Amino acid sequence: MAVAVTHFADRLVDLVERKQSQLVVGLDPVVEQLPASVRGDTLAFCEGIIDAVAEHAVAVKPQSAFFEAQGPEGVRALFDVCAYAREAGLLVIADVKRGDIGSTATAYAAAYAHVADAITVNPYLGRDSLQPFVDICRREGTGIFCLVKTSNPGSADVQDVPLADGGVVWQHVARLVGELGEDLVGERGLSSIGAVVGATFPAEIVAARALLPRAPFLLPGIGAQGAAPSDAAGAFTAGPAGGLVSASRSVIYASAGADWREAAACAAEALAHEAWHVAAAA
Amino acid sequence: MAVAVTHFADRLVDLVERKQSQLVVGLDPVVEQLPASVRGDTLAFCEGIIDAVAEHAVAVKPQSAFFEAQGPEGVRALFDVCAYAREAGLLVIADVKRGDIGSTATAYAAAYAHVADAITVNPYLGRDSLQPFVDICRREGTGIFCLVKTSNPGSADVQDVPLADGGVVWQHVARLVGELGEDLVGERGLSSIGAVVGATFPAEIVAARALLPRAPFLLPGIGAQGAAPSDAAGAFTAGPAGGLVSASRSVIYASAGADWREAAACAAEALAHEAWHVAAAA
Repeated sequence: MAVAVTHFADRLVDLVERKQSQLVVGLDPVVEQLPASVRGDTLAFCEGIIDAVAEHAVAVKPQSAFFEAQGPEGVRALFDVCAYAREAGLLVIADVKRGDIGSTATAYAAAYAHVADAITVNPYLGRDSLQPFVDICRREGTGIFCLVKTSNPGSADVQDVPLADGGVVWQHVARLVGELGEDLVGERGLSSIGAVVGATFPAEIVAARALLPRAPFLLPGIGAQGAAPSDAAGAFTAGPAGGLVSASRSVIYASAGADWREAAACAAEALAHEAWHVAAAA
Repeated sequence: MAVAVTHFADRLVDLVERKQSQLVVGLDPVVEQLPASVRGDTLAFCEGIIDAVAEHAVAVKPQSAFFEAQGPEGVRALFDVCAYAREAGLLVIADVKRGDIGSTATAYAAAYAHVADAITVNPYLGRDSLQPFVDICRREGTGIFCLVKTSNPGSADVQDVPLADGGVVWQHVARLVGELGEDLVGERGLSSIGAVVGATFPAEIVAARALLPRAPFLLPGIGAQGAAPSDAAGAFTAGPAGGLVSASRSVIYASAGADWREAAACAAEALAHEAWHVAAAA
């Protein structure tokens, strides 16, 4: 008997509504910044954060770079962290920003399909580099968030370059993401093919929503990068799960003292409440 | 006493001239395709290929995706393969195509600076996402190859989009790569900040060379993707190390039989000779 493949965006919408939270907690374990009690133990730190925020967040977003920086053992910790978060009832968005040509993209998609619910991908190599990720989403019930307009100041260098047709590069990419996601819209109205749009650019969120009415937006940049949940308002016209408000350092390093878990829980709870009210008013 | 940091592009030029080869052998270990004697042993396969091609190639280019697809153990194999190749006198270009915002890019740059001589990077996030990689190049004597015009047919979807100023996206990116590399030109005339330009697009190689007179080009697409060394001719106006001719499947899977090492050596030798003659005539 075939096992029914659940749809990533449907799972996302259900979980956002059940937990009344759009909060994604980014896991950026920088060795030198870990609290004393877990210094040198990335896994213990991440598990402590997951325990602390599980009640308030809908997903965690481990940033692969910080695990890869610790070599093969770091990658093992990444896989273990993903498993731990799913056991805690959280979705896992692996922030890997991969993108490569056909056969290689297939290998990347396979690498993360069984450890994460969704991954971030980079569109620079074009549609045939994204299609293998989309195919895996259809087959495995996973999702992707494609970079569209990123949260960093330098995103303008390539993404905001004016095009001959009157738009800019990221709008062109947004249209491509929309086309890729058309066939993967779930019963709850959102597609499993989402977009990364920096919360640091509220006007671009509104513009991207107009181009991508069905895409869940992953919105990094809350907290340390300077954005607030209110900046994400434009995402929520697609419903409460239309915007996933992502904060990393401001939550996981909320305290460097012995109360790091409690401080992370407080920061997560406050952000989740704030985002929920922003979404309800949108 | 400070250890002198060697310059990546100077090392590259020296090695190309000494070995009379511009050949880069891509290591794409697909589990199901490995010869029977090393089935299930990615490391043994890659070491066998390295032994076979070391005399003929200037570098190997392990494709991270195929290692990551095997989980943390695969990442360990990647690191071991990189060390083995350097012991064999080859440069290592880790094909990871990473790209992320500031602090994360720094983590990625640190992750690979001590295992590879150079890595591939993705420019979609803009200049401030590339700068940490450039800084590591300066400090550690490593190099990067930034995606400019990739070898896949779908590269046109984003990279060939016409700009308001009359060019296309990849030409804009090429200019950015040129600016980033200006301060890292070595004594032999090439920069440590290189560019990836698909050998499948000979006209674009010529156009990219005009925009990037100092950048070494990494030219994938030879062999299985349909390009030949002669397609790379436009790269060599910057000298014999101006173009690195990269072939993967056509070399490493030249034979599925017991003679897989010999077949890889033959394929590598033939490609290296062909590329050397193309470069000499350019």
